[in-house]
Parts: sequence; C-alpha cells; structure tokens
Amino acid sequence: MNNDSDIKTPNLKARLAGIVDNTAFNIVIQLLILGSAIAFVLETEPELEEYNVLFLIADWSFLLLFTLEYILRIYTAPDKKAFIFSFFGLVDLIAILPSLVLIPGLGHLPGFHVLRILRFLRVFRIFKATRFILAVDRMIEALGEVRRELLALVILSSMMVYLSACGIYFFEKEAQPENFGTIPKSMWWAIVSLTTIGYGDVYPVTPGGKVFTAFVALVGVGLIAIPSGLLASVLTEARVEGRLEDENENRDN
Amino acid sequence: MNNDSDIKTPNLKARLAGIVDNTAFNIVIQLLILGSAIAFVLETEPELEEYNVLFLIADWSFLLLFTLEYILRIYTAPDKKAFIFSFFGLVDLIAILPSLVLIPGLGHLPGFHVLRILRFLRVFRIFKATRFILAVDRMIEALGEVRRELLALVILSSMMVYLSACGIYFFEKEAQPENFGTIPKSMWWAIVSLTTIGYGDVYPVTPGGKVFTAFVALVGVGLIAIPSGLLASVLTEARVEGRLEDENENRDN
Amino acid sequence: MNNDSDIKTPNLKARLAGIVDNTAFNIVIQLLILGSAIAFVLETEPELEEYNVLFLIADWSFLLLFTLEYILRIYTAPDKKAFIFSFFGLVDLIAILPSLVLIPGLGHLPGFHVLRILRFLRVFRIFKATRFILAVDRMIEALGEVRRELLALVILSSMMVYLSACGIYFFEKEAQPENFGTIPKSMWWAIVSLTTIGYGDVYPVTPGGKVFTAFVALVGVGLIAIPSGLLASVLTEARVEGRLEDENENRDN
Amino acid sequence: MNNDSDIKTPNLKARLAGIVDNTAFNIVIQLLILGSAIAFVLETEPELEEYNVLFLIADWSFLLLFTLEYILRIYTAPDKKAFIFSFFGLVDLIAILPSLVLIPGLGHLPGFHVLRILRFLRVFRIFKATRFILAVDRMIEALGEVRRELLALVILSSMMVYLSACGIYFFEKEAQPENFGTIPKSMWWAIVSLTTIGYGDVYPVTPGGKVFTAFVALVGVGLIAIPSGLLASVLTEARVEGRLEDENENRDN
Repeated sequence: MNNDSDIKTPNLKARLAGIVDNTAFNIVIQLLILGSAIAFVLETEPELEEYNVLFLIADWSFLLLFTLEYILRIYTAPDKKAFIFSFFGLVDLIAILPSLVLIPGLGHLPGFHVLRILRFLRVFRIFKATRFILAVDRMIEALGEVRRELLALVILSSMMVYLSACGIYFFEKEAQPENFGTIPKSMWWAIVSLTTIGYGDVYPVTPGGKVFTAFVALVGVGLIAIPSGLLASVLTEARVEGRLEDENENRDN
Repeated sequence: MNNDSDIKTPNLKARLAGIVDNTAFNIVIQLLILGSAIAFVLETEPELEEYNVLFLIADWSFLLLFTLEYILRIYTAPDKKAFIFSFFGLVDLIAILPSLVLIPGLGHLPGFHVLRILRFLRVFRIFKATRFILAVDRMIEALGEVRRELLALVILSSMMVYLSACGIYFFEKEAQPENFGTIPKSMWWAIVSLTTIGYGDVYPVTPGGKVFTAFVALVGVGLIAIPSGLLASVLTEARVEGRLEDENENRDN
Repeated sequence: MNNDSDIKTPNLKARLAGIVDNTAFNIVIQLLILGSAIAFVLETEPELEEYNVLFLIADWSFLLLFTLEYILRIYTAPDKKAFIFSFFGLVDLIAILPSLVLIPGLGHLPGFHVLRILRFLRVFRIFKATRFILAVDRMIEALGEVRRELLALVILSSMMVYLSACGIYFFEKEAQPENFGTIPKSMWWAIVSLTTIGYGDVYPVTPGGKVFTAFVALVGVGLIAIPSGLLASVLTEARVEGRLEDENENRDN
Repeated sequence: MNNDSDIKTPNLKARLAGIVDNTAFNIVIQLLILGSAIAFVLETEPELEEYNVLFLIADWSFLLLFTLEYILRIYTAPDKKAFIFSFFGLVDLIAILPSLVLIPGLGHLPGFHVLRILRFLRVFRIFKATRFILAVDRMIEALGEVRRELLALVILSSMMVYLSACGIYFFEKEAQPENFGTIPKSMWWAIVSLTTIGYGDVYPVTPGGKVFTAFVALVGVGLIAIPSGLLASVLTEARVEGRLEDENENRDN
C-alpha cells in the first residue's frame, strides 16, 4: 500500500510534506548543495572567467531552488516558528540571503565591497549538508557528554598556547625581533608548533629558545592532541550504548 | 595421519586445492609479491639501467607465476564465478593484466604512452598481499561497525577543508595571489595544514590570515584526527568481543 | 530564603566567605585574570607604547585587586596555613609577587635586568585560572591512575629522543656539521621530528640518515603519540565511572 | 627484623643477591646509566675537547662498574645461563662490550674506523634503563595482545608508503627529477609526509601530484596514526583488567 495513493483526498500540505521527506527530493537537494559549492570554487578561477555568465545563471538558479526549498520547508513544518529559528532553519535562511545581492555588475564596483563580502557568505551554504549526516545527532550527544572535559582541555590548551608564546618571546625577542618581537607575533609560532603543523616560517634559533621549545613541544603537543582522542573514545562508547539500548528494547518487546 | 597420503585416490582438483592451502605455497607467493614490488622500485633507478634485461626476465617470470597461481585458484575454487568476481579474484587478475603489455622496447616509444601507464599498473600487485593479513577480516568488520560515524566524519572533514580553503582565499588572495589566488590553490594549503604536514611551501602572511589559520588549525586538526582514534578504539573493542565470543564458545562446549 | 539575610548577625568572616564563594565574585576574578593576561600581551606591542601609562595603571590595579583577593582568601580559609601552602595559595602568591617590582622607570635601566625577569613572571598569573576549571580534579585523578604507564612512556620517549639524536649524529655529522655536528645539536632535530612538527630547518641529506629517519619516524612518532591517547582513554573511563558512582549513590538512597 | 642481620651465617651469594635487590644499589645503577648517557652526549661537543682525559676516565669507570654489576648479576642469578641469554643479560653484555675497545688514542687513527663504530655502540647502554621501568611488563603484555592487529597495520602502512611513493613518482618524476626521479627517492617524501613531519625539503608541485597528495594525506595519515591509538586503548584496558584481577584476588582471600 502506497501512502500517497491510499489516502484519497490528501490536502496540499500533506502532499508537500511527503515530497520533503522523499528520498529523491533529498538527493536533489544534496546535489544542489554540492553543485553550489563547486560553482563557488570554480568562480574564483581566472581561466574560467569567460564562463561568468554561466556562473551567474547557476547562482540565480541555486538561489531560486534553495528559496523554493526554504518556503516548502516552512510551509510543511509542524511548527513554523520553531523551524525558522532552529539550526537548520537558520542555515537555510543564510543559504539564500547572501545571493539576494547578486545584482549583476554591482559586485565589481569599488563602492560595493560590502556586497562582495555578502556574496562571499554563500560559502556557508555548505552547512545545509549537515542535515543529511545521519550520525550527527549521536555525535552532538557524545560531544555534550564530555563538554566539561572538553571545556577544561580547551582552557588548558589556551593557557599552553599563551605560556608558550610568552616564553618563546622571552628567549627569542632579541635574536629574531621580526618574528618574535611581540607576544602576538610569538602566538603565531605557538599555534603552528603546538598543532605540529610546523610550516618552518618561524622557529627558534637561540639555545634557550630551542630548549624551551623541546619542553613545550613534548608537553603541549600531547595536551592539544587529547581532545580528539577523547571525542573518538566517546563516539565509540556512544555507539556501544546505542546498540545496547536497541538490544534492550528488542528484549523488552 | 597425513591428509595427502591417507586418501588413496585423490583427484587432481583436491590435490591442487591442497597445494593452494599449503603454507609453503603461500610463503612462495608472499615472496613473489615482495620480489615483484622490489623489482618495480629498482627498475626506476637509472644506476641499475644496465640490468634492464634482468628486470625484463624477472617481470616475465612474475607474470608467468602469478598467471599460474590465478589459474590454479580459479580451478580449485568451489565456486569459480564467485572467486573471479571476489575482491581477491579481481586483485589477482589486475596483478597479471598490466604485465601483458610487457612487449620489450615498445614501452619506450612515444606513441606507447598508454602502454607505459598500463605497465605502471603493476604497482597494484601489492594488493595481493592483503590476502595474507590475518586480522584483515576483523578490521573490515570493525570498519563496518563505525561506517556511519566514519561517513559523518569524512563529510565534516571535507566541509572543514572546503571552508578553510574558502576562508584563507578570502584573507590571502591579495597578498599572495600566486599561492592563494583561487580556491583550488587554497585547497592545497588547507590539506597540507589540516593534516598537520605543513611543508612550508604555502602559509598565510596577513594578520587576518594568521588569526583565521589559528582558529582553523585548533579546530580542524582535531576534527581530522578523530577518525583514526575512532578506528583504534573500535579495533580494541572488536578484539575484546572476539575474545569473549571465543570464551563463550569454549564454555558452551 | 537567602543565606545572607536569613542569618541575623553574621560575623565578618562568614560574610566574606560568602563573597568568596559567590558566583559574581568568581566571574570578576576570571575577568581580572583574562584582563591581566591580555594587558601582558599588549604591553609588548611597540605600536601601543604611547599607552604605557595606562598599562602601568592597569598593572597597579591588577596588583591591588589580586592582593586584596589573596588576603581575603587567607582570611576566610578554614585552615590558613593549609591554604597558603596549597597549590592555589602558592599560585595566588606568585600572581602578586612579580608585580611588587613595578617601580616605574626602573625596569628600563640596564642594571635592572633581574627586575625585568621578575616582572616577566607575571605571566604565571594565568595559573590562577586553573581554579575555575571544573573538571580539573577528575583530570588530575585520571592522570594519577595512569601515572605508572605515563612514567614508563616518558622514559621510553626520552630514550627514543636520545637514541634518535645519537643515530642521526652518526649518519649526518660529516655531511652537515653545522646542524648535526654534536649530539646536543642533533637533539633539536630529534625533538622537532618525533613530535612531527618538522620545521624544515634541519633534516637529513645522506642516504643513511634518510633510511634511519624513516625507521625512527615510523616507530618514534607512534611512541610519542601514545601518552595523549592514553590520557584520552582514561578521561573517558573516569567519566563513565563517575557517572556509575553517581547512579549507585542515587540507587542506594 | 632485618633480613640481613637476622640470618646468622648468610653465605656470600645470598648476601650479594640482597645487594642486587637493594633499592640503593638500583638507584646507583640508574645514576650510572644516566651519567654514561650524558657523558656520551657531551663527548661530541668540540668545546669540551679539553676535558677529553676526564671523559676517558669516566668511560673507564663506567666500564669497570657495569662489568662488576654484570658479574654480580650472573653470580647471583638463580639460573646463570638463563640470565646470560635473557633480554637484560644481553643488554648488560652489550653495555660493556663496546667499551672494551677503549684503548686511548687508537680511536682517532684512520685505520681504526671499525673501532670508532664499536665505541659508538656504547649508545645502547641506555637500554639498561628498561629494567627499571615498572610498567614495562604490562606494556609488553598489552603489545602482545594486539600483535595481530599491529602486524596487519604495519603491513597496511608499508603498503601505503609503497603505493604513495610509486604514485608520486608517476606524477612528479618529470617536474622534479632530483627529488622524485626514482621510487626510492620518492619514498623519502612518502615517509616524511605520511608521518606528518613535512620538513618541506620535498613536496609536489604539479597539479596531479598535489591532488594525489591530498588523497594520500587524508587516508594515509589516518592509517599510520591508528597503531598508537590502538596501543593507548589496549594499555588503558590492560590497566583496568589488572585492577579487576587484583580486586578478585583480594575478594577470594
């Protein structure tokens, strides 16, 4: 029995709600998000400047389709206000707002710098994709369970970055004033080193700075790596608990 | 009692199946895979060019022996069709296909660029080695258990790379057009930074770009490191469960 | 019912203890710590040198307020001596001691190098923030539970750094005497490589050194990453146990 | 009651065994190992060349004391042969063997290159320190429990390094023959990139090479990080089980 055909006189809202929940509809939206993201990237390629008109048409189409989707979702939402102010409602709004300044030609005038920044906000359309990540609820829940530990680690990591920057400033400020002459400058080194990126644009050269870095690297690198290990552990655990709950429910029935 | 001698009139198939399951046979195959991989590497050394003939002979031998092995495996498989289209069946086929273009001399003619690429495909022979990794089944099973979390993390990581590239493009495109002039160019920076490789060929120089990098590095580096922690946790857990199941079976008997 | 107004004649000590435990008081202290840290950073910016007087006033204010807080905490502590020699008591003392050398002008005279170092110690004021990290007790407990494993890993990691430095010295000392000419110099390379920072200021160039690095990198990088994974696992576990204990207590009551 | 004085006529062996088990004796040995390691490092400093005589005396002393310790351990071992061929027995032997070539002056003659390499083997004295790591047994046990997974991950990681090197060779060999001209050269890049060290001495420059690196980095970096997460998980688990067993034993008594 098919839900759509079985009910004899479905009203428009139920019919549209059926569309919104439809797999095909969701795949179309996912492709539109992907297409929009790719178009945004390709637009910046000077070699593709000749296709500017195509990009404009594409952008107008994305705007139109995302606006339609937004209206559809508001219309079919059980609680319209709740949807509009929900995370996904706001994301859907942000996805269409920046494109409203898509007035051709204006974006290239010097006085319209603000408009260009607004157009840049189209980048956040990508957040619409989070709606389709199945495990995202469980992940947010897992995140919530370790929020105190995470907060503590974020504070400790910030303190580590702060103390590292102050320390290296103390050791290197005279040898390399252009790189470590102030603590904000030294912060760049601290971030790049403690995340182990290590571009190599700034590094200590004095013996004191090197010994300090050795100490900071061994302790700080480990500290900053803990949160992702913690999240990984909690995700595994959340998965196990989810499975156990499923099993319990099955046993109870 | 020896399986081979005990049965009085074993047919050829059973006898060959015995060979395929034989430890010595498997060690020979493993050595052949290793030898093939080493030969492939050494072939590229210009200092060893004088031994080209030897490499050709070796390659023909590997082709012959892997072909023999492939035929043997098909012949002794309980379900021939299932084997041919199984992962290992396809790997065994790919291991011999590229070598079929081993016609001496042709590979060096300009018109035979395709042939050279085909010959390069011999690199995938290494996949034959996966057959001998004992824990691989358990690992694939563990991978399957967290496929939803992994998929979610892959999507989130891709979004992180995308947003990082777009953001750094916004901050650095004017200061460093050669490195950050387009978003595809900025993607290279995003990948190298978020994986913490940090070659140092591209890095932000503007204050805005550096502050953005600091934020992206602290969040994104952690996000991209979660999947391997997740897999590690699940592998440990899979091992524990495997042991518990073994114990349960022992107790039941 | 309000605790402060309910009791009719509260003595001064109880009244002050109430202030110290007050949320608003703690938020003020947190803002002071943050302000002090930011001022310390901005003081090093030569562009802000014209505001030197403001920084001096700010520093005197921080000194005054932190001193008041310290006196208040001693006065309201149930055991004064225990508080003074506790971790937080010492941190509070260190937070005000360096500022006592804030005599204007002196810090810039050549003979007062020691004073400038003492003033630099104000950086440790940031440790006052640890008082407000809620999960810090649980984290220290978790740290205590794996102290033997951590100690073992620290010793093994130190051995890894030592052996890596000695090994690379052996391979590279003749090719790059300026970078690997002595083992202490080679230690810098070992730290930067094993923590995977890899600035790129020093790296092996000889074939032997590269093969040695390949081996050391694959083993050592993994070894040095274990402690943070261990701490992450133990933190998750500590959290689970904490929750179980809470549940048990609830059940017992 | 003191064990040493209570027994009236202890034989020499028991008396010596008491010394070997003594805490003070073990601390002395630990200090000797540390001193030997520091001397080995400082010897390479050209600034300290004037103290060469002191280093020679120190080395002779370490040789003498470690030899005495070795003889003592053999003499007091319940099973002499078992001790000599045990891990610690061999380490103790290696710790004294290289110093036997400490004939003054000879090490600096050109014909005594082998001797200098032998003297360099004193670096392995540091392995004597493993005897004093309390958790090392539990760690080796934990390592043994995941040996199959570890072996699988080592094989997969090796395959990843091999395939990455072959792939980047394919893309970059023409653009950068000096860095990627042969697969062994490309292996250096693969190791430095997959361990996320990223010195920046070699990196892809072609679009194909960069896209390939992006793919390899995201997959390979995660794969190579799994073993240390696995070991961390197993160590936590081993600790929990150890505690549970202790509790069970206490309950049974």
